[in-house]
Amino acid sequence: MTERERWQELGQQLRVDSVRAAAAAGSGHPTSSMSAADLMAVLLDKYLHYDFDDPENPANDHLVFSKGHASPLVYSLFKAAGAITDEELLTFRRFGSRLEGHPTPALPWVDVATGSLGQGLPIAVGIALAGKRLDRLPYRVWAVCGDSEMAEGSMWEAFEHAANGKLDNLTAIIDVNRLGQRGETMHGWDLESYVRRAEACDWHAIAVDGHDVAAIDAAYAEALGVEGRPTVIVARTLKGKGVSAVENKNGWHGKPLDDPEAAVAELGGLRDLRVEVHVREGAEPHSFPAGPLELPQYELGAEVATRKAYGDALAAVGGADPRVVALDGEVSNSTYSEIFQAAYPERFFEMFIAEQQMVASAVGLQARGWKPFASTFAAFLTRAYDFIRMAAVSRATMALSGSHAGVSIGEDGPSQMALEDLAMMRAVGGSTVLYPCDANQTAKLVAAMAGLEGISYLRTTRAATPVVYGPDEDFEVGGSRVLRFADEDDVTIIGAGITVGEALAAADALAAEGISARVVDCYSVKPIDAEGLQEATAATGAVVTVEDHWPQGGLGEAVLSALADLDEHPAVARLAVAGMPGSGKPAELLAAAGIDREHIADAARQLVRARALR
Amino acid sequence: MTERERWQELGQQLRVDSVRAAAAAGSGHPTSSMSAADLMAVLLDKYLHYDFDDPENPANDHLVFSKGHASPLVYSLFKAAGAITDEELLTFRRFGSRLEGHPTPALPWVDVATGSLGQGLPIAVGIALAGKRLDRLPYRVWAVCGDSEMAEGSMWEAFEHAANGKLDNLTAIIDVNRLGQRGETMHGWDLESYVRRAEACDWHAIAVDGHDVAAIDAAYAEALGVEGRPTVIVARTLKGKGVSAVENKNGWHGKPLDDPEAAVAELGGLRDLRVEVHVREGAEPHSFPAGPLELPQYELGAEVATRKAYGDALAAVGGADPRVVALDGEVSNSTYSEIFQAAYPERFFEMFIAEQQMVASAVGLQARGWKPFASTFAAFLTRAYDFIRMAAVSRATMALSGSHAGVSIGEDGPSQMALEDLAMMRAVGGSTVLYPCDANQTAKLVAAMAGLEGISYLRTTRAATPVVYGPDEDFEVGGSRVLRFADEDDVTIIGAGITVGEALAAADALAAEGISARVVDCYSVKPIDAEGLQEATAATGAVVTVEDHWPQGGLGEAVLSALADLDEHPAVARLAVAGMPGSGKPAELLAAAGIDREHIADAARQLVRARALR
Repeated sequence: MTERERWQELGQQLRVDSVRAAAAAGSGHPTSSMSAADLMAVLLDKYLHYDFDDPENPANDHLVFSKGHASPLVYSLFKAAGAITDEELLTFRRFGSRLEGHPTPALPWVDVATGSLGQGLPIAVGIALAGKRLDRLPYRVWAVCGDSEMAEGSMWEAFEHAANGKLDNLTAIIDVNRLGQRGETMHGWDLESYVRRAEACDWHAIAVDGHDVAAIDAAYAEALGVEGRPTVIVARTLKGKGVSAVENKNGWHGKPLDDPEAAVAELGGLRDLRVEVHVREGAEPHSFPAGPLELPQYELGAEVATRKAYGDALAAVGGADPRVVALDGEVSNSTYSEIFQAAYPERFFEMFIAEQQMVASAVGLQARGWKPFASTFAAFLTRAYDFIRMAAVSRATMALSGSHAGVSIGEDGPSQMALEDLAMMRAVGGSTVLYPCDANQTAKLVAAMAGLEGISYLRTTRAATPVVYGPDEDFEVGGSRVLRFADEDDVTIIGAGITVGEALAAADALAAEGISARVVDCYSVKPIDAEGLQEATAATGAVVTVEDHWPQGGLGEAVLSALADLDEHPAVARLAVAGMPGSGKPAELLAAAGIDREHIADAARQLVRARALR
Repeated sequence: MTERERWQELGQQLRVDSVRAAAAAGSGHPTSSMSAADLMAVLLDKYLHYDFDDPENPANDHLVFSKGHASPLVYSLFKAAGAITDEELLTFRRFGSRLEGHPTPALPWVDVATGSLGQGLPIAVGIALAGKRLDRLPYRVWAVCGDSEMAEGSMWEAFEHAANGKLDNLTAIIDVNRLGQRGETMHGWDLESYVRRAEACDWHAIAVDGHDVAAIDAAYAEALGVEGRPTVIVARTLKGKGVSAVENKNGWHGKPLDDPEAAVAELGGLRDLRVEVHVREGAEPHSFPAGPLELPQYELGAEVATRKAYGDALAAVGGADPRVVALDGEVSNSTYSEIFQAAYPERFFEMFIAEQQMVASAVGLQARGWKPFASTFAAFLTRAYDFIRMAAVSRATMALSGSHAGVSIGEDGPSQMALEDLAMMRAVGGSTVLYPCDANQTAKLVAAMAGLEGISYLRTTRAATPVVYGPDEDFEVGGSRVLRFADEDDVTIIGAGITVGEALAAADALAAEGISARVVDCYSVKPIDAEGLQEATAATGAVVTVEDHWPQGGLGEAVLSALADLDEHPAVARLAVAGMPGSGKPAELLAAAGIDREHIADAARQLVRARALR
């Protein structure tokens, strides 16, 4: 068998196995797998360098299926490489199987989860950035893209950043099978439309017949030789290639074939080719020097913005932990990640105004073991919510920081105010959500984030706020802090971030009227300190929560959840931003939103009076 | 004064007024305004057709500042057009002023809020689509873009869709002032990089000196003459143009000038040019025929997916209300918006896999008074969260429908499962969140959505579920329905959507053990029926909530909020998806997530037993 014959046979095997896996599952995307089978056969046999026995080998290439629905093809490749058995292949999509409907890192050879289209290539850019700038290893990143997903703007953010990063270690392969889920794509088989866009973005582009293994081989070889820029292989393919019942026919997306046995026969029957995938000699990734952790310290009573403390602390953490890296979306002088950038320029990534690519890059970097901290205005993290959601499916570990939270930002107005970020970030699988009120607390929490698993989020405030904690106080994730209390308090006020200062001021005002208010700083919104809050509130029987956020899904509801198990429920008044804010001074907007010291005091008074009447 | 001299003078006036507005506010973006002043002077004086006395005139052009931070320029234009006084101009960014930090429709001449970059052009595409395909009027859409925001992938979704729609009524103007917030953009003054990308996307592109009014004039004239495709004017400009202290200098983004008086003097002093803006003769927009509302009806006990009922009902609503239009993100055969498409192809917009552009188009269409319903998998609406958030700031009215919610979708796995959409959509200003459990209820709620203000969201289920309501039952937004009750119930089970059937099955099982369970269908998650739920739960004193969603921000917390005012709190057990799901059959995944009938019955039993022990 010649090399080309072997590739053709392997392509057919991948098709056969894709058809069989989907048939066994009774669902899945065999036709989307069949179009890319020849492209993958040549890649697996000749170009991919991957040690399936040692997926942690830092010299391994990375194969990212941006078109994650072609999972039957992914798993058929793993079988051809000897990584899984035929028996396991046929567990596809069954409950408990590692072979999920779309690939996830439940499998050791899968870096990241895909299946939300338009994410794999951006993440691949992140891995390629790690290879060039951090690991400094010769591994290559291969991203297999669908033509439908080229409609996602995030793909073009990836094109921009890959070219800007001169990522000649990245090869994108677009499987132009012409057909999306419900019909033809915008560009059909117009390969030139993709080539033109890619070249405009300074990529090297090669159009090929995606079923001509010789042409595919030549394209990969050409890609390997390109220096200083990434390459895209734009491959004309047939969806459902090789099976006349479905080949190039609309209406067969995401469905098993009607007659899989006939399809397997038409494809030439079962095969059992095994590929000895090339292994690259091991190499040590580059590492950066570590130093002692010297967190910034702020004087009690000083006025420091928590966003500034974030920047200070991030630089400190970066000094101690050389795997910490930072990314920012062109606002590093607002989020203060510029402090990290100045200290560790090699480990800082300017992502310009491309929040999706920022988060995708972070996911890619952490796939190589780096510890990304990505920052922008909290409001603009909403731009990347799908990427954050999917990062949780990827079991990614990364830290996000959102500055300029809430109406307290003032004059810039609602477009810049995050009022939904607590809800958004709480509703991420396994996430941690932190919201410090002062600079020393911020520093401690940033240090803690470097040690957390999963996706953690820090919400920071634009305005300078008083330092209320000494630099030696410790704050654990999942804790809370009673800032003010007496033996017989009448009411408990629970705030976080900007509202803690308002709560303290309200307590002062209430004290002058003979009402004793306990003040709790609920800096860990998720996990929340249920025990501590129950204890702090049980004594008073009346609770005011106050947050610079919409009333839904934020601090108030988190507190209700934390208190839900109590046998005796306190009366709870929840203050949150009720109407759409405009511009104004921070104090004006806090007042207009009903979350300033006076509204807090009013709510507390009413609760205390209502209890007195009962 | 020649025409050119007038434009130059007007440009200087716009600069002077931008400087003055920011100086009065003590904040804002004068330098980003000054770069685009000449471009806007020529546009306002010669090309824009807009009746400032009648902003609702359907023949008006639309001017969208995608770079919303150039609000001083926007307001200076309005002053030059005689729409606002100099006195009002100087209220910029003050509390209560219509002149917010970034433009919003608080001003009648502003279609949509901008300020989150990368959104204005996509929305402009939506308005231009309305002009071409719905209104069929000759108005033009002008989108003023920053060069920094070209890094957002959403801008390239807009480029794709504008070309695909042959939107020669759209002109984008890129103000290439080279400097972003913290430094130079990726492409600096490389105008060709933008021209190349735009041309690759089949736009007509014109590079100009953005301070040469004759060249600007020629570019607009050229744009007017281009047929069959949109035009982009790529203008080389100087940030802070005209004031030596800031011109083309980094570090002056988003700051008032240090010495505004000197700046005004350098710009030649105050001017008071008034522009008589061209008005286009009024014209009637095209309208489509209306018919009677004939909602689909489903037989009790039949098995129908709520997503199917969405499609049926949307087509019915479209037949009755000719302003209803539909958009879909290339999954119309899954969301069943294809039923609307088949019935009303002229009012259907295929947005391919570009959820950001889909929502942006909806916002643009509603700016012209159309009633958009946009659908995709609920999980993929996370992709457009920033656009949805901003749509609320725009006071937009649109309906969103997300199908394939939760683990109950089965084999496709977590990438396709919306588990955060209730939290996400509840935390949108003024939103409505609906989650029907059967087909007849879905039909009624879809009809209701066509009459709602603001952003409404319908969550639908992939699987066919039993029809539990007759076709004549009515469902009001903000209501709930007690599906099963006895005089002396022991426990109340509150579900919505897929969990209602599970709750009913649990109640059956409990009844066999002598436990009487009330079942409440909480189909309106926001606004929630606080009164109804309080009444339904007060009688039993024990509540189980159950949802196919993460525990944060969804049904369970909405119910806690609804019950928070009660004097006597019931014991509440909240069931929700606790861990990351995988693939499997729907029933397996509901069980694994702890939200199926058996888990509900268990939770109810435990609550009832605990109460018996007290």
